[in-house]
Amino acid sequence: MAFMILLNGVPPHGWVKRLKAIDPQLDLRIFPDVGRPEDIEFALVWSPLPGELKRFANLRCIASMGAGVDHILRDPELPDLPVTRVVDPSMAQAMSEYIVMAVLNHCRYAATYFRQQREQGWKIHIPRLAGRTKVGIMGLGQLGTHAANRLAALGFKVAGWRRSPGAVEGIETFCGQDGLDPFLGETDVLVCLLPLTTETRDILNARLFGLLRPGAFVINVARGDHLVEADLVAAIDGGHLSGACLDVFRTEPLPAGHPFWDHPAIIVTPHTASITNPSVVAAQIYENYRRVLAGQAPLHRIDRRRGY
Amino acid sequence: MAFMILLNGVPPHGWVKRLKAIDPQLDLRIFPDVGRPEDIEFALVWSPLPGELKRFANLRCIASMGAGVDHILRDPELPDLPVTRVVDPSMAQAMSEYIVMAVLNHCRYAATYFRQQREQGWKIHIPRLAGRTKVGIMGLGQLGTHAANRLAALGFKVAGWRRSPGAVEGIETFCGQDGLDPFLGETDVLVCLLPLTTETRDILNARLFGLLRPGAFVINVARGDHLVEADLVAAIDGGHLSGACLDVFRTEPLPAGHPFWDHPAIIVTPHTASITNPSVVAAQIYENYRRVLAGQAPLHRIDRRRGY
Repeated sequence: MAFMILLNGVPPHGWVKRLKAIDPQLDLRIFPDVGRPEDIEFALVWSPLPGELKRFANLRCIASMGAGVDHILRDPELPDLPVTRVVDPSMAQAMSEYIVMAVLNHCRYAATYFRQQREQGWKIHIPRLAGRTKVGIMGLGQLGTHAANRLAALGFKVAGWRRSPGAVEGIETFCGQDGLDPFLGETDVLVCLLPLTTETRDILNARLFGLLRPGAFVINVARGDHLVEADLVAAIDGGHLSGACLDVFRTEPLPAGHPFWDHPAIIVTPHTASITNPSVVAAQIYENYRRVLAGQAPLHRIDRRRGY
Repeated sequence: MAFMILLNGVPPHGWVKRLKAIDPQLDLRIFPDVGRPEDIEFALVWSPLPGELKRFANLRCIASMGAGVDHILRDPELPDLPVTRVVDPSMAQAMSEYIVMAVLNHCRYAATYFRQQREQGWKIHIPRLAGRTKVGIMGLGQLGTHAANRLAALGFKVAGWRRSPGAVEGIETFCGQDGLDPFLGETDVLVCLLPLTTETRDILNARLFGLLRPGAFVINVARGDHLVEADLVAAIDGGHLSGACLDVFRTEPLPAGHPFWDHPAIIVTPHTASITNPSVVAAQIYENYRRVLAGQAPLHRIDRRRGY
């Protein structure tokens, strides 16, 4: 039973090293040099091209390298197999650190001060204090709940919105389509942590921005396809939003000349909020390989109908 | 009994408004138009000039507008009277928010990304995660303890150093001169929150920087006189320190042409970490006025021998 690594745009050696350390006998094949396609029964993948996976007739499980699976499910010819995601506590930690930083930088005018320093300017901007700032988190899964707790510990008012019904302990929770507008109406800083599905694509749009509190700020650390880019620029330039911090984009790297680069109220980072670390996650993926080998159900299997 | 407001470099109207709201009958005098100097028995002050306070023969208490009193004690002709400071929980909260922001911006290369954005650059810098970063806080009073707890809640390793013996609950504590070097030897990010005294002036110097871990980062939110500026630049340019974030300076505003403005590894903010808010603190100062009037000891009196 061969284990294939198929990572588009991500170097494979960190994974090879960690998986070999766990099991020196592992029959590892690095795409595209995989030998006989029929040998492959387990695949660790990132952004497979449409149709790429259907060539492996004996494949039994598709493991995403990250927390998201949208890069797999967009393949219209995807074989009907279990798809798993990574659940990595250190990923939630890294994501929370980025979100707390982005929220504080907004509240304390960090970008303005960086600009002032270049111009040798000394002007005080009264900070927005945490206790008077409501952060609204869209998506209350493992990552969203972690970030909500960290922000609350720091003194921020926090609420969350989720698609499915059900409260999350200790967090003011709004649910479903009915809960969305009231949630937005109380939000000063919106954080998008949603999975990318057909329902959430383009969800950060003009209508949504209009429902946020005046002067609200938007942080997108989920996927670029959540955001209607022109709507964001219009909402900022129109004065309803104060700005945005974006870590993900429809096209990555963000193309040269894109209007986000130069916009004075938009902060851009190169998809750094959370980076999957093979040293933390390889054992979890190997465990799923072992389970599939033994005929057991893999862990962290996603629901293909829901999309996450 | 008249209440004098003597604030050099700070506008008095916020204080007038809040104090009058508490006691419309209060006999408030705004320096320098104070009428008969003998009337003044209580003074709210910021940065009085040397000799300015000795003119008030019937003064019974000197109240600092802020958490620090160094701006009062530096007067060689200061009358021998009780000096009080402000203890403001919202000030500790604001200070903690600034410190957490500065630590995260260092760990996540925020200044580098701001620069990259200007150049439309897309390059990932692997973040220093909180769990692998030890923050060392110099000064474990109300502000230092608050910041230590917030950083620990976010996942950072935290230690503190204080002059006097005695552990602080939940925080790894180093004490006194003997504890300083071992404390520094474990520190990746140093936060200075010390009061400014004859013992702590110039404490952030070449010797101290040399004892920090290689690549350490320095955050000064206390007073400009804690830092030997040329030693900081030398330690960064020599490669032992990775950079600094400074909110306070020997001369404020930071003079035009000062080398900090243009240094690529030094972040400068205009003394914004914690701003005393009259709406929060006026009642506390009025209470001390009432106590002095009634012949009681004022609250939050500092020890002039220690200097804080």
